[in-house]
Amino acid sequence: MTSPPLATYSIGGVTHYGAVTDAGIVDLSPRFGKDYPTLREAIAAGALMKLADDAARRSPDHALDAIAWQPPIPAPEKIICIGVNYPDRNAEYKDGQDAPKYPSMFMRTPRSFVGHNAPLVRPRASPQLDYEGELVIVIGKAGRHIKESAALDHIAAITLCNEGTIRDWVRHAKFNVTQGKNFDSTGSLGPWLVPYTNEAQIADIHLTTKVNGEPRQDDRTGRLIFGFRYLLSYISTFTTLVPGDVIVTGTPTGAGARFDPPRYLKPGDVIEVEAEGVGVLRNGVVDEAQ
Amino acid sequence: MTSPPLATYSIGGVTHYGAVTDAGIVDLSPRFGKDYPTLREAIAAGALMKLADDAARRSPDHALDAIAWQPPIPAPEKIICIGVNYPDRNAEYKDGQDAPKYPSMFMRTPRSFVGHNAPLVRPRASPQLDYEGELVIVIGKAGRHIKESAALDHIAAITLCNEGTIRDWVRHAKFNVTQGKNFDSTGSLGPWLVPYTNEAQIADIHLTTKVNGEPRQDDRTGRLIFGFRYLLSYISTFTTLVPGDVIVTGTPTGAGARFDPPRYLKPGDVIEVEAEGVGVLRNGVVDEAQ
Repeated sequence: MTSPPLATYSIGGVTHYGAVTDAGIVDLSPRFGKDYPTLREAIAAGALMKLADDAARRSPDHALDAIAWQPPIPAPEKIICIGVNYPDRNAEYKDGQDAPKYPSMFMRTPRSFVGHNAPLVRPRASPQLDYEGELVIVIGKAGRHIKESAALDHIAAITLCNEGTIRDWVRHAKFNVTQGKNFDSTGSLGPWLVPYTNEAQIADIHLTTKVNGEPRQDDRTGRLIFGFRYLLSYISTFTTLVPGDVIVTGTPTGAGARFDPPRYLKPGDVIEVEAEGVGVLRNGVVDEAQ
Repeated sequence: MTSPPLATYSIGGVTHYGAVTDAGIVDLSPRFGKDYPTLREAIAAGALMKLADDAARRSPDHALDAIAWQPPIPAPEKIICIGVNYPDRNAEYKDGQDAPKYPSMFMRTPRSFVGHNAPLVRPRASPQLDYEGELVIVIGKAGRHIKESAALDHIAAITLCNEGTIRDWVRHAKFNVTQGKNFDSTGSLGPWLVPYTNEAQIADIHLTTKVNGEPRQDDRTGRLIFGFRYLLSYISTFTTLVPGDVIVTGTPTGAGARFDPPRYLKPGDVIEVEAEGVGVLRNGVVDEAQ
């Protein structure tokens, strides 16, 4: 039997975590919340599989449509996003430069993300809300100076990201994309954590993004310029990775900004990021309240 | 009587917060720790002045040399750093570009900082550890779309930063300075929080950095390209500022990288960042353990 994925959600305004089955959510917060207040602490304790296995024996507590999905890790220590990590993405920049020697990266705040099914917010400041579907690695075991050969041992789970971006604000400043990547509620994480057990779950999986059912991004993780082992080793050269850290690994070609004219997201659109073995992360779009 | 500044520190391996007087530290964690586990929660409750006033009536619990200083806010939701924000700094880039229209900014992880008196760590990966002295604003009141006219009402406290940087890793990637700004323990925050009460505390104060007693950076905050009101208003265009958020406001000309040849930090150096009315943030340098 496959272990069920684990999700963070709110019900009646209270945040819980639980396991996701076809029949509904098995609420794990009453059973494990004292030991692990959030999935971050469960991951730090190496307890993700224990929770999943416990839940597999129980009946659901909530219907899937009774909950509000939240990003799986409520407050990671850090969310590191990799830029330009699929081959054709570098070509999209049309600056005549060779593929970069090292990965570009930036950080996002937790509040720049919503959970599965929650709407992305197109801000007052710009109409250029764009999608980027990505596979996400969640760190399980702390480490610095991680060797590529041992890097995958540091992964606790995988999930998905719509790394939503405000295009004109990405280039606001002389350096750095910070602003355009950190508008409140412009991206999403989820729908849930799939416990990581073996490299086949990530090595060469199919990753797609659809807008209103129309395929926009379609690639395989086997084509990453900087693969998962390299990324964990490289990042840990400068920072200690800790349990619950979120690594957003890059998006394939085909974001809305690359069309002529650009096809930005607008209220009513539905974006679906899907990866085989992980699931579908689905979000609508609304305008920021005036 | 002036309110004493508030600090986070560890003693016997346990993290406390307290008020700093000439005679020692008044430990506030036993008195207020249940209501405010850290200074972040005290700030969120608007209790910073209450804590300072309470402490002013008490005797110290610890000698100043008995504690290990920590960054004042142990786990801010976000640490946003402003790049190129003093006039001559833009000229230092020698790229012929005019002063930027909008501020450049990036984020740092809490673990890239140590507290006052703790050594900065020159990493194995590079000998190019450099200093950047900066004034820091700590947010007290949450806000989005903050108007410049009301921006200063959102400040709870001020402190200092040595925004230590690994120069060659700042330009590792095609975009973004993330790596070079986030090596573990390469910067410092502190020594303490000075409660904010009026604009004169920040508007045009003298800010200096010395290395081994030699002046390297010397400027006034009145010369910022992007002033404090503007920064808080601009940042809150994209993200909700929340209590405890840390805004590192930019460094004057004179970092080690600007000398010919560059004058990077080495083990045994002592760096002092000082601002009038705030204090002195002092750190040594050690090599990362092999």
